[in-house]
Amino acid sequence: MSASVEDMKKFIEPKSVALFGVSRRTGEGAFNILEQLLTQGYQGAIYPVNPNATEILGVRTFPSIRHVNHNGVDLAVINLPRNLVPGILGECAEAGIRHVVICTQGFADANDEEGRQLQKQIDGFISRGVRILGPNSLGTANPSLKFTSSFMPLVMSRIPIGVICQSGVFFGFPELRLLGKAFDIANSCDISFSDCLEYYEQDPETKVIVLHIEGMKESKRFIDTVSRVARKKPVLALKAARSHQAAVAAASHTGSLVGSDGVWDAALKQAGVVRLDGFGEVSDVANTFALMPLMKGRRVAIITGSGGFGVISVDACCRNGLEVAHLSPETYSRMQALYPPWQTVGNPLDYLPSFLVMKQPYRKVVTESLRTAMNDGQADAVLLMTGVTTIKSYHRLCEMVEEAVPGKPPKPLGCCLFGGYRVDAKQSLEAAGKAIVYDNPESAARALAYLARYSEFRRGFQDNPGIDG
Amino acid sequence: MSASVEDMKKFIEPKSVALFGVSRRTGEGAFNILEQLLTQGYQGAIYPVNPNATEILGVRTFPSIRHVNHNGVDLAVINLPRNLVPGILGECAEAGIRHVVICTQGFADANDEEGRQLQKQIDGFISRGVRILGPNSLGTANPSLKFTSSFMPLVMSRIPIGVICQSGVFFGFPELRLLGKAFDIANSCDISFSDCLEYYEQDPETKVIVLHIEGMKESKRFIDTVSRVARKKPVLALKAARSHQAAVAAASHTGSLVGSDGVWDAALKQAGVVRLDGFGEVSDVANTFALMPLMKGRRVAIITGSGGFGVISVDACCRNGLEVAHLSPETYSRMQALYPPWQTVGNPLDYLPSFLVMKQPYRKVVTESLRTAMNDGQADAVLLMTGVTTIKSYHRLCEMVEEAVPGKPPKPLGCCLFGGYRVDAKQSLEAAGKAIVYDNPESAARALAYLARYSEFRRGFQDNPGIDG
Repeated sequence: MSASVEDMKKFIEPKSVALFGVSRRTGEGAFNILEQLLTQGYQGAIYPVNPNATEILGVRTFPSIRHVNHNGVDLAVINLPRNLVPGILGECAEAGIRHVVICTQGFADANDEEGRQLQKQIDGFISRGVRILGPNSLGTANPSLKFTSSFMPLVMSRIPIGVICQSGVFFGFPELRLLGKAFDIANSCDISFSDCLEYYEQDPETKVIVLHIEGMKESKRFIDTVSRVARKKPVLALKAARSHQAAVAAASHTGSLVGSDGVWDAALKQAGVVRLDGFGEVSDVANTFALMPLMKGRRVAIITGSGGFGVISVDACCRNGLEVAHLSPETYSRMQALYPPWQTVGNPLDYLPSFLVMKQPYRKVVTESLRTAMNDGQADAVLLMTGVTTIKSYHRLCEMVEEAVPGKPPKPLGCCLFGGYRVDAKQSLEAAGKAIVYDNPESAARALAYLARYSEFRRGFQDNPGIDG
Repeated sequence: MSASVEDMKKFIEPKSVALFGVSRRTGEGAFNILEQLLTQGYQGAIYPVNPNATEILGVRTFPSIRHVNHNGVDLAVINLPRNLVPGILGECAEAGIRHVVICTQGFADANDEEGRQLQKQIDGFISRGVRILGPNSLGTANPSLKFTSSFMPLVMSRIPIGVICQSGVFFGFPELRLLGKAFDIANSCDISFSDCLEYYEQDPETKVIVLHIEGMKESKRFIDTVSRVARKKPVLALKAARSHQAAVAAASHTGSLVGSDGVWDAALKQAGVVRLDGFGEVSDVANTFALMPLMKGRRVAIITGSGGFGVISVDACCRNGLEVAHLSPETYSRMQALYPPWQTVGNPLDYLPSFLVMKQPYRKVVTESLRTAMNDGQADAVLLMTGVTTIKSYHRLCEMVEEAVPGKPPKPLGCCLFGGYRVDAKQSLEAAGKAIVYDNPESAARALAYLARYSEFRRGFQDNPGIDG
């Protein structure tokens, strides 16, 4: 049965939470949910249940949920051995708690009869109206509320990316830099992809939705829902368990049924979902969709101080279905004035001879190149390659971008940077919403190609539904 | 005419060097070759030529090469406006200097008659026995000698990777971490890929050779040479200028003639060269070949604390032609003793339930998993996924690897790590030659797949020449 948006808010915007399985141990390796909540700064009511303590980390604990003098706690989080879970579910139901995250493993993901029987007992509670997220789940994360049910330490930030995943790796992988809001539906015995999609569909804080799918049972409703949502907000999907061997592994991970990869591929494209090619792409592509505007076409202007890097970037664009822009005559004549007479001005715009041979100031040449390319109607995105080897050159880059692109960029700007201040420049430029910094030209071209294809889909889905593969 | 190894040593192991075009300006943006040489700590003789100075940075300068009281300087480096280059070449020839790097741009890479005429004059010197590296070149880099002719600041390190490239981006991109020895042949009007290959073929410091190719004129000799060298040392190639548009860009970058990409692909595979798919792969794959042993087969054991990450890794292996190993019964029974009875022990080995459910110590479970997999004859490589979110967990990882893999690893060990100490762990584990740390499972699988295919080539090239695509 589908969950309402109000149900979903109990999971991800709870005003009060009961915690089952809070350890008295704290610090690294203790996986103490209460400690995580306090560290994040959650301001809602917390009711830790532990029969062997009266307080943990300065918070009063309760011997059982019956002792909590509060009716209708929004959410319970259970992190106890599997055989205790049905009993706790019963106590929750009695106490009027209708929304429960089950962190515990060993149900549909187990290979034994006990796991199956315990899952049947959980199913019984679901049929009596209790909503379950999990089992085998880290639950939810919500940076706006400083709330998470995860027992793993998390770094959350208020970004407009909403995640729906079946693995804690999307919570615990800080390099992803995409932990805004998140649901870990894991084994997904009740709350489904579609339920979470409908929450994000109406959530004003979410601009881009990222799915990590191993498999699912409710594919008809999912395709209907995601087709509708993808027409309003970009939906990116990492569909894992592509191969037979991965499907076997998925069965013991989330107990998922995995369909044929070809069917998934066609269905996702038809629905307008951007299907990602691997885990390594998730962060860059999600940030590109979250921070950059849609593209009017596939034409890219490339600005580089290395002819060789320019050639490599052209390769990357062409292989990903992007076009190397034929820039306008005004752009070429403006740049020719800065270049040696013997240099053919083309795209890529190679600014190195301008300052090595013509002794033009680097700042002037790069700023002018960037401004001209950003304003050229023949380019739908701009790729800038340069170095940030010193703190001075890093600050200079940020200033040049600010000067050439005041306000929000009118088209996507991607940067490939080299040098020790690459990470700093990435943080600054992305925090300002000015540019996305990629590791290499291939990553840049892949992300822009996804954006270009989704942009085409958004422009034309009435006539031509689906994403061009 | 092919260059001898003795010629090549003059370029990359010079005992003395004359510098033409040394600025009195120093510091960031000055691109002062003398300053770079002094910063690196080069111990050979340096003769800067500058008619407007008597000393620069404390080094005596000479008004012309005629004033240098030393016969047969090993190498000259010219970084002057293009119209001055033939005159300086004449002075060098008179002074008995037979090896010259030309950094200057604007010859075959220019679009004008003057560029062609100047190149003809350079060609005249070549036919009289002067050897030229370039033009449009940063020259060479040699960390063993602390020598470079590059005017760009470089970070060199003594690693057994030899680069032959046509773009300074391979010199100036510190993220590549592969600047051991390097030749930038750039426009390649004389010194060629084959000349550099023959140097590396005999160089005991070089174990792996990386090529960045835009195009070349001497393809017959190149294929003969590289086919021979690839049977002794791995040769990795990034063949750029794949598309028509990239070929146009390459013509104005290095003036290269670019053949059909399909022909290149077939020829490189036939020769046993590992063809890389993009710039983003270069560093990881080169390090993998430099630090890890060859593989006996394609079977990979995966150790993970995240079931979802395990599934993603299986996908990555299968898509890259690797196999998920069927580990030995001894491995499974050894691990089952640490796992919950309800967990199916398989590959991936998922250690999370072992310490979450069975309360086994993390260090014991991971060390035991790693040792068992490294010793299992059914696995040809091992992939370990874990977190280094704290300095403690980073040190613990290094200790666990040391304990499970004393000495050099008997098979490749790849790690995908998450957390803030990823870069530190990468540096430590790679410096110790214990493991390669990759950004994500896809990068790991690609690098191991290249290694597996090259290993097959090395085992079987008598019967079955070429690399399996």
